Amino acid sequence: MEIFAKGSTFRLTDHGKVLLEASDEKPMIFAGHGTEQVEMYRGNFKIEDRVEERVALPILHSEEKDGALILDFGGQIEGRIEADNDCSVIRFRSRNPEINRFWIRLAAEPGEHVYGCGEQLSYFDLRGRHFPLWTGETGVGRDKTTYVTWRSDVENRAGGDYYNTSFPETTFVSSRKYYLHAETTAYADFDFRSPEYHELQIWEVPASIRIESADSFPELLKKETAFLGRQPELPEWTRHGLILGVQGGSERSFGIAEKVRSGGVGLAGVWCQDWCGKRVTTFGKRLQWDWHYHPQMYGDLPERIRELHREGIRFLGYVNPYLVKDGMLFREGMEKGYFARKSDGSFYLVDFGEFDCGVVDLTNPEAFDWFKGIIETYSIGIGIDGWMADFGEYLPTDDIVLASGKPAMIEHNRWPMLWAKCNYEAVKETGNLGKIVYFMRAGGTGSQKYNTLMWAGDQSVDFSRHDGLCTVIAAALSCGMTGMGLHHSDIGGYTSLFGNVRTKEVFFRWAEMAAFTPVMRTHEGNRPDDCYQFYDDEDGIRRMARLTGIFRMLSPYVTEAVRENHEKGLPVQRALFLHYEGDERCYTEQFEYLLGRDLLAAPVWKEGRKEWDVYLPDDEWIHLWTGREYGKGNNVVGAELGFPPVFYRKRSKYADLFEKIRGTYGA
Amino acid sequence: MEIFAKGSTFRLTDHGKVLLEASDEKPMIFAGHGTEQVEMYRGNFKIEDRVEERVALPILHSEEKDGALILDFGGQIEGRIEADNDCSVIRFRSRNPEINRFWIRLAAEPGEHVYGCGEQLSYFDLRGRHFPLWTGETGVGRDKTTYVTWRSDVENRAGGDYYNTSFPETTFVSSRKYYLHAETTAYADFDFRSPEYHELQIWEVPASIRIESADSFPELLKKETAFLGRQPELPEWTRHGLILGVQGGSERSFGIAEKVRSGGVGLAGVWCQDWCGKRVTTFGKRLQWDWHYHPQMYGDLPERIRELHREGIRFLGYVNPYLVKDGMLFREGMEKGYFARKSDGSFYLVDFGEFDCGVVDLTNPEAFDWFKGIIETYSIGIGIDGWMADFGEYLPTDDIVLASGKPAMIEHNRWPMLWAKCNYEAVKETGNLGKIVYFMRAGGTGSQKYNTLMWAGDQSVDFSRHDGLCTVIAAALSCGMTGMGLHHSDIGGYTSLFGNVRTKEVFFRWAEMAAFTPVMRTHEGNRPDDCYQFYDDEDGIRRMARLTGIFRMLSPYVTEAVRENHEKGLPVQRALFLHYEGDERCYTEQFEYLLGRDLLAAPVWKEGRKEWDVYLPDDEWIHLWTGREYGKGNNVVGAELGFPPVFYRKRSKYADLFEKIRGTYGA
Repeated sequence: MEIFAKGSTFRLTDHGKVLLEASDEKPMIFAGHGTEQVEMYRGNFKIEDRVEERVALPILHSEEKDGALILDFGGQIEGRIEADNDCSVIRFRSRNPEINRFWIRLAAEPGEHVYGCGEQLSYFDLRGRHFPLWTGETGVGRDKTTYVTWRSDVENRAGGDYYNTSFPETTFVSSRKYYLHAETTAYADFDFRSPEYHELQIWEVPASIRIESADSFPELLKKETAFLGRQPELPEWTRHGLILGVQGGSERSFGIAEKVRSGGVGLAGVWCQDWCGKRVTTFGKRLQWDWHYHPQMYGDLPERIRELHREGIRFLGYVNPYLVKDGMLFREGMEKGYFARKSDGSFYLVDFGEFDCGVVDLTNPEAFDWFKGIIETYSIGIGIDGWMADFGEYLPTDDIVLASGKPAMIEHNRWPMLWAKCNYEAVKETGNLGKIVYFMRAGGTGSQKYNTLMWAGDQSVDFSRHDGLCTVIAAALSCGMTGMGLHHSDIGGYTSLFGNVRTKEVFFRWAEMAAFTPVMRTHEGNRPDDCYQFYDDEDGIRRMARLTGIFRMLSPYVTEAVRENHEKGLPVQRALFLHYEGDERCYTEQFEYLLGRDLLAAPVWKEGRKEWDVYLPDDEWIHLWTGREYGKGNNVVGAELGFPPVFYRKRSKYADLFEKIRGTYGA
Repeated sequence: MEIFAKGSTFRLTDHGKVLLEASDEKPMIFAGHGTEQVEMYRGNFKIEDRVEERVALPILHSEEKDGALILDFGGQIEGRIEADNDCSVIRFRSRNPEINRFWIRLAAEPGEHVYGCGEQLSYFDLRGRHFPLWTGETGVGRDKTTYVTWRSDVENRAGGDYYNTSFPETTFVSSRKYYLHAETTAYADFDFRSPEYHELQIWEVPASIRIESADSFPELLKKETAFLGRQPELPEWTRHGLILGVQGGSERSFGIAEKVRSGGVGLAGVWCQDWCGKRVTTFGKRLQWDWHYHPQMYGDLPERIRELHREGIRFLGYVNPYLVKDGMLFREGMEKGYFARKSDGSFYLVDFGEFDCGVVDLTNPEAFDWFKGIIETYSIGIGIDGWMADFGEYLPTDDIVLASGKPAMIEHNRWPMLWAKCNYEAVKETGNLGKIVYFMRAGGTGSQKYNTLMWAGDQSVDFSRHDGLCTVIAAALSCGMTGMGLHHSDIGGYTSLFGNVRTKEVFFRWAEMAAFTPVMRTHEGNRPDDCYQFYDDEDGIRRMARLTGIFRMLSPYVTEAVRENHEKGLPVQRALFLHYEGDERCYTEQFEYLLGRDLLAAPVWKEGRKEWDVYLPDDEWIHLWTGREYGKGNNVVGAELGFPPVFYRKRSKYADLFEKIRGTYGA
């Protein structure tokens, strides 16, 4: 990269492409101060800002020093730029402690596309919109025009919007083949609406902005993940079949597992989220947030786990970093003083929906280790092979005192990473990396290394555009652009509210897609009794048996993709343009993806379809179920339930494997 | 008022109370520039702003010159202040043409209340909220938690919010006994949320800010209206009884008028909004926007009007400043070139809901006179005694060229005043002031003088908090604080959508309130067939006969209040604190009002009530219907349909009249 600086003019270019520029007419940096109002209601945040001042900071002075260029932005902020061939880092230092709002503009081109910013569920290409980056609930409905969203807003302030995410990150990838990372965990809002510039708003002066470029997208992701960190490989056993979500105690859970296994379903694990007991709220059945096995519901669980292991099946549980007020571990945490406090010294209790919990202060190393110990003792210690490492988004920001001494407005977005790290260390320190898998919906910078598997959070049990099946595709793709290439979702979705119930169709459209992702896992949903459950349905069990069969056969192929994610940061589910960068159409595709290098999946995400429109980039494609050959372009293909549009590259080294799948499961 | 200026410090005080202050720590003025995005859909505006810069402007220099104090705000804006005993005016001059955003802060006190800003339907006391000031549709539902609002938003972008108003004005009254007026018609947003200051945002540097104080609220309103202008007196005939809203052609309209009159209803006038013909849209029956009488529907209308006049009844029509594309007058306007144009020279057509109209360019003196002539010829010329002077809010802002040469962003908020003036001149120049009444929902600075009667716009036909009966009370009170003291509304409301239909109860709660306002007028609503119409109901006609009887008996009393409005700017419907300024409780009351000096009305605005909670300030009050005496405090009083809680002052000089009303119509 090249730096040009003269007087008040500055330019950063990459092989001639302008990335940053500043002049008196075109300011690059604005700074000022503002006062925010933050309200949290059960993980849903309402954030309002009053910007008192926002001033363009012209470059007053520039000089070279120790191989770096020092820029004086308006006498307020110092920028120290170091650039090498394809990477530039600007380190900022604020000279004015009043500054708590910072904006930086990047040069943009009209046809440019932007991806990443963590997990984005509604839109993969971020261009044309702005994205507040703040971890929280993702919302129920997420579309102000739908009845479910409206009711959720009115009754629970929970409707959400297109940008709500549990995993926000101040990192994006441009189609101009660079990634940018802002080193900050403050509230941010990245605005990609202007045709001429991207404007990144950050509620502090960030430590640095890093821009790195590459000649190809795979190379770019490799560099990005070298910097951000890469996920460990998935345990081999996840490829054995379904992780079956069941609950209701040993008898019911293991009974259903046995039932579906004898029905031919390939079973990798049994996931009992209520291993810790449960409590009933108006939202549905919730869990007892006290992270040890429930002696009544799951009597003698360690022995049951040993039995499962003998049959080659894993057992998974559930943990999150909050502890309910009436639980055993809460009492222990209270005595040790490990919860976050209010300024008056009392413990801060968070309402999680009709029950209050303490917030384990993960910035207190002793509390962190204590909680790690809870996972080690009560989960890993009894042989548990994985868990949903839920939440991480609910750090309140008002009147909370943390051991780090930092404001909660700064720690809030860091919390998911701390929570991931806590799980990671528990697993690593017990020698279980690559054996245990925990899956998280919350994330932040640094989570890449510490999170063994991304999970897309709570979708509605439907085909809706902003909260249904299709959203987990964009989610996987945007995670993949942010270094989180192992992604999966609740088969059939989770949230059933206001009369919205899961049908067999949406369940199996979701399941057939999941067969072409790294992990298949079902969830009974928040209202299990109202929603379709495949295990209650003979035909459903047969269908699931077939899909897990396909999933198992794909194992060698997907294993390689999983390894590529670990070694090169190339995600398992890939945006089409990563491998077809010359094809403009691929840059706006968010409902199709490549699984590894050689499979293209175009999941059916609407109701009542028997055919599906598929776009194929320039290659020789074989339709997985019929063997019919297709070339570049738009095609209408048959898409009966159980036969999602999937294609493989004719010249794939796995062509034999794919043919075998067709032979076994084809149309 | 006293001015103090030294170095960068400035203070404006009124008998020691700080009104304005500036110092290096407490800036008073901020300026900058921004870029707005304005979308209009059928009068509903979506306005988004991107503020590029906002800078506090410290006082760099101050000097006295020609009896004025000149302040230099940051070298960007000059402020020239002149103050006398109780009035200060700051005239601003921008030295930087880039400035298109301006903020000024006023000193505020925690317990202070603020009123006015034109017509505000949801909240009378503006403190604690901000109020965008931009004329537009007021919204259907106006409450994001209601089904009607949600559906209106989804289907028509029309749900609205608490601040939407057809009559915004950059004028407010503080409980600290001053009024402030900002001389501007640019988009503004007055923010009363801070406990320490009010911040007024204006999208230009305003010509001036005027602050005037008084020792009492009646005195303050007198001064305010001396400055803003005062409404003419209402014609005496409006006191004769109901203005009956009917439509459907001569036969139906005059037939219904005759029916209700023979049923004992006091009739002041017959209002046929479809005198010009009609067109059917999915919203309901709309009018033919071509402002002459429809020869088929209202054959021989001039003669029918003469007949009505012989019987002492007036006839009212309807006009608005747009002309439909397929009408006669549109063709004439096109030929003369009197419509606003696009930058490419073509005429700008506005979608008013399934039909397109030309926008008469009221900034073109010839077009203005032409349209005045249309009113004179086709309305006044055939003997019409009044009309709804509808709309005025729909001046689009994108790509529109006006004769004034000014941007539509500046002319938009001025349009309602121009439209009022057009009506005023037509009436005045034909010698009909005080004989003709037109009623308007749109307003702006200057409308006070030119509008003969305010009408509250289109409410929902229900008891809802933000779009029902109760909202017209706050509307009347806030109009009264902005110099518009003659106010009334559609009895029974107007908008019936999404299954929301008018009941007999809401109609008569509205009618019984209207009997205690300056004008009683019914509207059949947008879906007449679905909604309750009193004329179809014998009991309804009886009830209306009684209410018009009461209204007529009140005439001498109300006539005096109407005169006070004209002469002193003291509104006919008055906030309680205007006369009970020592009673803190009165400052937050928005559902009760004084009618003139001696009547207190507490309309029932909820469904199914037989009793009503009433607050009475310190006085001797007699319950109008029972003669029972009450003192200061909270009281529960009987409130059967037809007997709204109304009280009169025992020592009123009209006590005999009120007793007579009780004798005739009491319980």
